[in-house]
Amino acid sequence: MLCQKQQQQFRCIALNASALLLYSHKNKPLPVEHSVLGGFSNDYSLAQQQRRNLYTSKFRMAPTSEENKSKPIGLVAIDETRRFMTDCFLKSKTSPENSKAMADLLAEADYRGHFSHGMNRLEMYINDLHKNSTDGMCQPEILNETPATAWVDGKNGLGAVVGNFCMDIAIKKAKQVGVGVVAAKRSNHYGIAGWYTMRAMKEGLIGLSGTNTSPLMTPSRSLEPALGTNPISFAAPANNGDSFVLDMATTAVAVGKIEIQRRKGEKIPLGWAYDEQGNMTTDANLAFTSGCLAPLGGNELTSGYKGYGLGAMVEILCGILSGSLYSNKVRKWTHVGSDAEADLGQFFIAIDPNCFAPGFTDRQTDMNNILRNLKPVDPSKPVLVAGDPEREHMEKVDKEGGVRYTPNQIKTCEELAKRLNIPPLKFNS
Amino acid sequence: MLCQKQQQQFRCIALNASALLLYSHKNKPLPVEHSVLGGFSNDYSLAQQQRRNLYTSKFRMAPTSEENKSKPIGLVAIDETRRFMTDCFLKSKTSPENSKAMADLLAEADYRGHFSHGMNRLEMYINDLHKNSTDGMCQPEILNETPATAWVDGKNGLGAVVGNFCMDIAIKKAKQVGVGVVAAKRSNHYGIAGWYTMRAMKEGLIGLSGTNTSPLMTPSRSLEPALGTNPISFAAPANNGDSFVLDMATTAVAVGKIEIQRRKGEKIPLGWAYDEQGNMTTDANLAFTSGCLAPLGGNELTSGYKGYGLGAMVEILCGILSGSLYSNKVRKWTHVGSDAEADLGQFFIAIDPNCFAPGFTDRQTDMNNILRNLKPVDPSKPVLVAGDPEREHMEKVDKEGGVRYTPNQIKTCEELAKRLNIPPLKFNS
Ligand SMILES: NC(=O)c1ccc[n+]([C@@H]2O[C@H](COP(=O)([O-])OP(=O)(O)OC[C@H]3O[C@@H](n4cnc5c(N)ncnc54)[C@H](O)[C@@H]3O)[C@@H](O)[C@H]2O)c1
Ligand SMILES: NC(=O)c1ccc[n+]([C@@H]2O[C@H](COP(=O)([O-])OP(=O)(O)OC[C@H]3O[C@@H](n4cnc5c(N)ncnc54)[C@H](O)[C@@H]3O)[C@@H](O)[C@H]2O)c1
Repeated sequence: MLCQKQQQQFRCIALNASALLLYSHKNKPLPVEHSVLGGFSNDYSLAQQQRRNLYTSKFRMAPTSEENKSKPIGLVAIDETRRFMTDCFLKSKTSPENSKAMADLLAEADYRGHFSHGMNRLEMYINDLHKNSTDGMCQPEILNETPATAWVDGKNGLGAVVGNFCMDIAIKKAKQVGVGVVAAKRSNHYGIAGWYTMRAMKEGLIGLSGTNTSPLMTPSRSLEPALGTNPISFAAPANNGDSFVLDMATTAVAVGKIEIQRRKGEKIPLGWAYDEQGNMTTDANLAFTSGCLAPLGGNELTSGYKGYGLGAMVEILCGILSGSLYSNKVRKWTHVGSDAEADLGQFFIAIDPNCFAPGFTDRQTDMNNILRNLKPVDPSKPVLVAGDPEREHMEKVDKEGGVRYTPNQIKTCEELAKRLNIPPLKFNS
Repeated sequence: MLCQKQQQQFRCIALNASALLLYSHKNKPLPVEHSVLGGFSNDYSLAQQQRRNLYTSKFRMAPTSEENKSKPIGLVAIDETRRFMTDCFLKSKTSPENSKAMADLLAEADYRGHFSHGMNRLEMYINDLHKNSTDGMCQPEILNETPATAWVDGKNGLGAVVGNFCMDIAIKKAKQVGVGVVAAKRSNHYGIAGWYTMRAMKEGLIGLSGTNTSPLMTPSRSLEPALGTNPISFAAPANNGDSFVLDMATTAVAVGKIEIQRRKGEKIPLGWAYDEQGNMTTDANLAFTSGCLAPLGGNELTSGYKGYGLGAMVEILCGILSGSLYSNKVRKWTHVGSDAEADLGQFFIAIDPNCFAPGFTDRQTDMNNILRNLKPVDPSKPVLVAGDPEREHMEKVDKEGGVRYTPNQIKTCEELAKRLNIPPLKFNS
């Protein structure tokens, strides 16, 4: 049973969070995907964000002493984050154009407050490049094309390189014939799915994208994980820079949220994860060691099979359509890098709303306003539209002049700077 | 607050379930959408199905005496169901072609076990037709077209007429350029979303469709409903008649499931519905009177904002894209019919997998097998793939030679037969 196999590995992530290289007791690489302990750091900012998300809950989220130790110290301008990451890629067998693509993607994740998918992942990409399990120089290639579709071979290129290439094709086709659908095989981890849908949105189009990922989600009735957290993003433009940007894993939550509760010795809500017997559990320890995430919706009684179905839908549009790996055939991804090619599948859709009823952005603006002005349960917490939490985070970063990283993250950056012989990360304060 | 306004109405549905015409205490038509008490009947078969869905739960589902009273009595062949409904439409200002389209759609819902969206709704459509709030004769019209898209005016036609028209355009375009995207405004209730996606699937294509519906879903943090149960369906072909057919409301559950628990005096699981103060409730009575359904995922802590986001995504692809009504502007739909045009929005997408990696159905078959062969928590309950529960139901109907309807449903049919002067429903046994 996969859950049991993963058990020791997850346990080791917890025990060795500050170690430089994470190995399980059997010296196997650890699956750290979606763990807040990824990037060799306790990501305090992520923890903060998650506490914000959780502040309606009964599960009180006071900072632990462990968290205080990893309190953010250095304010880094987003431009400097981008510069540093570009330099890292440039020194890792990656072309200037591809380096920039990856740095832009990862900096945007930090800017939007999705720290788990930003600089936190840098070293994983870098290690893959040095191990030649990802090709930093290559350009994807179109294998088959119609006026409205393209099948792309990512040629084992970096996620952002493949993703940008594909979404740009979808955009071009949408502008020509109203819609473009592109599926890529042989891609790599492509970060925040919203990056690609917003690329379409900035062109006045509706964007839709998803990726398959390493198996962590346990289908309804199953004891074993068989699908990834398979995120899906949908972005639509409104007036005056307003928008709707949904960008979500199809699991209820990421492993990171479970880890935070575990460290506090507090329960998790029913609906996040299963124990090793396949029961939904409130025990953060059991959930953490099983490594079996619940689909959105939780157990069968609360329609978790719908979240499982949505995850499978993403898998079909990614793995099955493109001919990449799929379901439990997808590799685990670790901080020590991987020897095997990831061969992930991704899909990208752009739709031109101008081909339909005139006035799309007016109506989108109106609907956003309807939703935001609904009477809230708690007057201090207004109803939000997808993308609002990220907008709030970006405003905060703009106001403060940068992003604060944790000491662990900064230590990783120092080591990378030395190892790759590049100028270290500069701080504003 | 909408929830409070709906309260009396929902209460009356419960009290007057067997009455011929349902009016609230203020003589206003009742919102019965998604209630198992719709169609003037306690739908026993739906109750049975829901009990099946719930049999993993702690909430024991023994039949009530009320349910026993409405135990199915008559076995009706699917062809006869279709014949009867066709006759009803023919006598209700509807063309032969359009009558057949609606009868096919509704019979398929009963065949698949989604009784809430089959004959149970017949009288609602019939009443709308007699009130001229739906046009049974008309054909939809293309307003704007590109090689891969079409914007359609449903011209207030029947849901299946508009839906078939649109999906057929999407299919044609997918066969020509790889993908077709169609959005319709001025449509009506289109039944099970899977009807349309399976239409594409039968042509070897991937189908995707959704519709907006009357507001019943309460967004995260809101006190009021503002989106419908907005179902989405995704269908993909596999080998030898196998397939993946996801067809789901983006709410956690339909009102009907709450009603069943309420009648038993039993609790509902956290995550289904809110009380009038906007708290997630386990009290089936409170949930029933508030009429505020939770999005898939439940409350914010279990990522209900993702289900809310998915419902909004469907709304954007339907209402916002097509220029129909949207969000809380959509009318309520009742058994007495409506005087106002529904002006619903719907979207239809077909994608030709042959434009991508060869061997799509082989891989889909393989993934279905991987999922179905996962080690189950309970060996007597194997892991399912979306569409499997419906397949199981169809096999049962085939074996038994028909569908069993409740006495209430049969009574409604008797009355319809008299009122419309058509041959009554014939029984096999
Ligand atoms: N590449 C990969 O392998 C991979 C895998 C999983 C996740 N991801 C990425 O990780 C990021 C985080 O995913 P997540 O599932 O944790 O997202 P999340 O739970 O933080 O947010 C999901 C969505 O809900 C919206 N939202 C949040 N609170 C809301 C509220 N109260 N009301 C309305 N909307 C609200 C957000 O704006 C967002 O669009 C995403 O960018 C995703 O693409 C990537
Ligand atoms: N036209 C409208 O206004 C409207 C509104 C709401 C719903 N509907 C229709 O009502 C019908 C029922 O919707 P619902 O949300 O109650 O559906 P549901 O909860 O019964 O099923 C949802 C999906 O999950 C799948 N499923 C169920 N159990 C599973 C399991 N254990 N493992 C894997 N997959 C499983 C089903 O095959 C189905 O595809 C649908 O056809 C929908 O289109 C229509």
